[in-house]
Amino acid sequence: MIIILRSQAADEEIHAVEQRIRDMGLEPHVSKGIQRTVIGAIGDESKVDKEALEALNGVEKVVRVMKPYKIVSRDSHNAETVIDVSGVPIGGNTIQIIAGPCSVETPEQMEQSAKAVAEAGCRLMRGGAFKPRTSPYTFQGVGVEGLEMFQKAAKAHHLPIVTELMDVRMLDTFLEHNVDVIQIGTRNMQNFDLLKEVGKVHTPVILKRGMSATISEWLMAAEYIAASGNHNIIFCERGVRSFETAYRNMLDVTAISVLKRETHLPVIIDPSHAGGKAWMVPSLSRAAIAAGADGLLIEIHPRPTEAWCDADQALSPNQLNELMVELKGIAQVIGRDL
Amino acid sequence: MIIILRSQAADEEIHAVEQRIRDMGLEPHVSKGIQRTVIGAIGDESKVDKEALEALNGVEKVVRVMKPYKIVSRDSHNAETVIDVSGVPIGGNTIQIIAGPCSVETPEQMEQSAKAVAEAGCRLMRGGAFKPRTSPYTFQGVGVEGLEMFQKAAKAHHLPIVTELMDVRMLDTFLEHNVDVIQIGTRNMQNFDLLKEVGKVHTPVILKRGMSATISEWLMAAEYIAASGNHNIIFCERGVRSFETAYRNMLDVTAISVLKRETHLPVIIDPSHAGGKAWMVPSLSRAAIAAGADGLLIEIHPRPTEAWCDADQALSPNQLNELMVELKGIAQVIGRDL
Amino acid sequence: MIIILRSQAADEEIHAVEQRIRDMGLEPHVSKGIQRTVIGAIGDESKVDKEALEALNGVEKVVRVMKPYKIVSRDSHNAETVIDVSGVPIGGNTIQIIAGPCSVETPEQMEQSAKAVAEAGCRLMRGGAFKPRTSPYTFQGVGVEGLEMFQKAAKAHHLPIVTELMDVRMLDTFLEHNVDVIQIGTRNMQNFDLLKEVGKVHTPVILKRGMSATISEWLMAAEYIAASGNHNIIFCERGVRSFETAYRNMLDVTAISVLKRETHLPVIIDPSHAGGKAWMVPSLSRAAIAAGADGLLIEIHPRPTEAWCDADQALSPNQLNELMVELKGIAQVIGRDL
Amino acid sequence: MIIILRSQAADEEIHAVEQRIRDMGLEPHVSKGIQRTVIGAIGDESKVDKEALEALNGVEKVVRVMKPYKIVSRDSHNAETVIDVSGVPIGGNTIQIIAGPCSVETPEQMEQSAKAVAEAGCRLMRGGAFKPRTSPYTFQGVGVEGLEMFQKAAKAHHLPIVTELMDVRMLDTFLEHNVDVIQIGTRNMQNFDLLKEVGKVHTPVILKRGMSATISEWLMAAEYIAASGNHNIIFCERGVRSFETAYRNMLDVTAISVLKRETHLPVIIDPSHAGGKAWMVPSLSRAAIAAGADGLLIEIHPRPTEAWCDADQALSPNQLNELMVELKGIAQVIGRDL
Repeated sequence: MIIILRSQAADEEIHAVEQRIRDMGLEPHVSKGIQRTVIGAIGDESKVDKEALEALNGVEKVVRVMKPYKIVSRDSHNAETVIDVSGVPIGGNTIQIIAGPCSVETPEQMEQSAKAVAEAGCRLMRGGAFKPRTSPYTFQGVGVEGLEMFQKAAKAHHLPIVTELMDVRMLDTFLEHNVDVIQIGTRNMQNFDLLKEVGKVHTPVILKRGMSATISEWLMAAEYIAASGNHNIIFCERGVRSFETAYRNMLDVTAISVLKRETHLPVIIDPSHAGGKAWMVPSLSRAAIAAGADGLLIEIHPRPTEAWCDADQALSPNQLNELMVELKGIAQVIGRDL
Repeated sequence: MIIILRSQAADEEIHAVEQRIRDMGLEPHVSKGIQRTVIGAIGDESKVDKEALEALNGVEKVVRVMKPYKIVSRDSHNAETVIDVSGVPIGGNTIQIIAGPCSVETPEQMEQSAKAVAEAGCRLMRGGAFKPRTSPYTFQGVGVEGLEMFQKAAKAHHLPIVTELMDVRMLDTFLEHNVDVIQIGTRNMQNFDLLKEVGKVHTPVILKRGMSATISEWLMAAEYIAASGNHNIIFCERGVRSFETAYRNMLDVTAISVLKRETHLPVIIDPSHAGGKAWMVPSLSRAAIAAGADGLLIEIHPRPTEAWCDADQALSPNQLNELMVELKGIAQVIGRDL
Repeated sequence: MIIILRSQAADEEIHAVEQRIRDMGLEPHVSKGIQRTVIGAIGDESKVDKEALEALNGVEKVVRVMKPYKIVSRDSHNAETVIDVSGVPIGGNTIQIIAGPCSVETPEQMEQSAKAVAEAGCRLMRGGAFKPRTSPYTFQGVGVEGLEMFQKAAKAHHLPIVTELMDVRMLDTFLEHNVDVIQIGTRNMQNFDLLKEVGKVHTPVILKRGMSATISEWLMAAEYIAASGNHNIIFCERGVRSFETAYRNMLDVTAISVLKRETHLPVIIDPSHAGGKAWMVPSLSRAAIAAGADGLLIEIHPRPTEAWCDADQALSPNQLNELMVELKGIAQVIGRDL
Repeated sequence: MIIILRSQAADEEIHAVEQRIRDMGLEPHVSKGIQRTVIGAIGDESKVDKEALEALNGVEKVVRVMKPYKIVSRDSHNAETVIDVSGVPIGGNTIQIIAGPCSVETPEQMEQSAKAVAEAGCRLMRGGAFKPRTSPYTFQGVGVEGLEMFQKAAKAHHLPIVTELMDVRMLDTFLEHNVDVIQIGTRNMQNFDLLKEVGKVHTPVILKRGMSATISEWLMAAEYIAASGNHNIIFCERGVRSFETAYRNMLDVTAISVLKRETHLPVIIDPSHAGGKAWMVPSLSRAAIAAGADGLLIEIHPRPTEAWCDADQALSPNQLNELMVELKGIAQVIGRDL
């Protein structure tokens, strides 16, 4: 940890900083430059509270030398982690396209969706039984019976399922229904109690990025899950908040290469929630795979304009088929399978 | 609801939109301009899914005519709402400064804090027993026993307490400990299950704004609480995410006048978490009161540099006293008490 | 134009709005809903000042029905525009990779760069003689003699040149030096006097997006150039400002499909200034081409770590060669040439 | 300057960084921690290109120890600078409210405006003869004759004038018309050639913050003016771009205390362009003065709804009078005059 002092810092202020560093169990190394004094604090930085040093008189700023995340960091584990989702690998050389409807609606809709997903060549299915909606007056999901409908349709086509957990009290129900991947949504990325609980099970977790979370905060949210014991974590970028109003969220395609450098865990992209319009999805999907993503989470619906939620962003089964052909081609160019 | 069609929209596309509007139980009024066709959908807009219309071919965009929030809207209740917090009014002409430490640490620290808060003339106290921290490796709060320490110290000085609820399973414990105001933190603003649960009790709720929530989304989060039955809601702006790195968050001072126009509920400001540095707090506090806020949530500590969390943003008791004098002066200028 | 009135709007307020619309030469159509009154203003919206209507008592908001841009809009010209840059087409089926150093340094560096660019198969070259630098104390570009060095090196390899114009007084010098494409940088996107002047010549213009410009503002900046007479405009997305600190700017990959829908003009991407680090450039470049961009603007340097500016973002000639192979593969997958 | 190396950095990489630091004329001090090596570069940091070091293999990040701005920095000049604008002081204990219309329209409108400004007790007047408008099809200002109208009306009431310079070629005309304060608008904050030219004259300059400029970039833009010789610089915060759509820009009230700490130059606020609506202006104005601003730039119009631009944000003369009373009260509370 490096402490940069203000140019007017007095000697007694500098001594107080040194003392505080020693109290924290680290060793201060003072170097006085022409215009500023800088103190290096040598030792285990994770014991040190940055804010406590910044609170001291004479301190301009404090810079961490080490990454605050450990288990999820590539420094701790250099090889790519491949996560086994009921037999389907996520991470590694094979790209996975996870498709399905925004929400579980009816047994027929789920059967048609599962059929379309499997026929397009996808190996995992998504769908929501509990929906986080901005308004309390709109459709909130069909609930627990949706999990049953979902499993029945997906299993008939041998597709492991991905579905969102919003309420910690519902975790046991998810386990009873053998949910294959638990999704933590963007609004719950820093719901720390929820993170700790999914950290105690072994079900793989897709951790969506918070609406305006930095990549570092996102890695730390994953660290909460990992520190509780569950290392089966998949990052999912789904667009972040910006000033632009031409689409719903701004897909942060640069996050893919940054995450690939920082963590050994798989990274997937949700182009549907990013753009928010079906006509943007093919372009964003191709970009994500070309950039190096390990997979996609795509919304489809047997009859998009009749979907009970997010009707404007679902692809039709035909559109999914066409997209899969392009994605396979791009995967091949960069030496991967799909 | 107004549907603006694309300039190339075909007649059959226009008819399909009209039909869909009728299916939703509204009446379409088509007006063909020189370059574009616009359709007004007359009727109860809250029944209509904007996305379902935007998904139709030929539709450029859909504009809502009505506000999506109801109970919290000033349209539904024009007078200012005053919330009674164990005898202390929030909203109305009197401004309330809620002060206290970031986290509950020890009985001594809480007693000293409570004394400082009361002596400065504040009538409510804040403090966290459960802390939402970015890193799983840092201090997470002292937990349930913190609630006891807090109540004991605060009651000795006749101060109702404000403390953050992060986990829905802890709500009963909060009620048993007679927490006077439940705070919902920025990371849980759209934790909808938590909102629904605090909506079922009558304890006043301080709803902090999400890190990058629009004012409209924030009002809708409050509507979740209100729709479940609890109308005792206080909005708290605490700075939003921005591109600026000179401070922690950007205090959105404009939100005060916008909220005052949109809702009848009280609006307070947290200058401590906004700026993130103690030296910014007096300036931001004065700005907030001058702008029309109904109160502040300020961090203080008997010995700021020794605080167990957010040491760099706590005021000392003396600094709080000095600030109170300025705030009283400003309150008077705008015709209010403090 | 649609005027939505406040729910409490009085009859005389509504009449005043109607009168104002007539004064502006449009025809008001009032429709009174159950909760709100909405007025459609039929006629030429471009005559109407939105703010003048929003200033009237009782008005909640005003929504434009028509796009504010005309010449650059796809509504005015549906086919893709191909711009002829001294014989090299930009737009259309062939993708162009424009490569070169951040700044012109020496004749040798320019000759080596031009050779590398041509050998990699690129057909245009970039380079800056005038550099917009954040600090007045850093290298500001070699100036006019840089244009000469640049032209000499580029012409030897039959490469048309792209270079940035910052000062309107330098336009004649650019014309005398036969600059093939004038680049307007991000900091000058709304330097309206500069836009008007480059609008009076016929040299193609690359218009970079402002640091935090909306796509609509960007299209309007292009409209300034087009309205002055020059329709040879190429949009260049180069990353926008965001809250993320892990890289320099956030590449807005979604802007590609939005622009392709809104305008008939070509759209290229600058992955170098977006990410700001050489190791991010291949991933971002592939993403941009896969998303549908018509070209790229890439920084290279014969010896990247010795570059006089932006040393951390330049590719080496070898890295450019490798990237070109991948980009050709992706172009083929989506049915384009490179 | 501090160079933090990657955890896997090899010895030869570390040596290369040391060598490069020496080549730059600084002295490297290596300190090897348990997990990372950190190198301090002692010497004149302003000679060093941060990017050149970040480009080297094995480097994780580079942190500056010194502020990049010099003349405008409080480190170089600790006392508050008071700028003399034709006899009226800006900075120091007296707060200045600069009021006037968005644009110069007619001699009558300017005479009525000047009268209103003077009668309200303001000592400076604002008004635009050249207007930076998003659309090329809207009113662009009355031009040079507007400067004459403005001077005539303002001088009759002994008000020095503030007006925006957009085009470097118009500077001589501004000087001939004895413009008292040259305003550089938000879109030109990094129009470096314009900054250099206004740096060569002695007329005071109001430098508005760029739409999404960091405070550091803004200080560096001022440094461009100062380094060319003109130290009469006034910073003006006017709201920044954000994700919020309830108002035009987000007023960054925190920037006031940050700037007051970083620079000795005066800081004023433009509440009119920040909020974008007249009804927000009183709240934002009070907040700005309470936060410590040295003045305001406010739009007024004799008949707001008839203004030729920004009609929705102008105050009426009566509203200005009422606001001045509140602002005087707040100034008094914080020990200042107005």
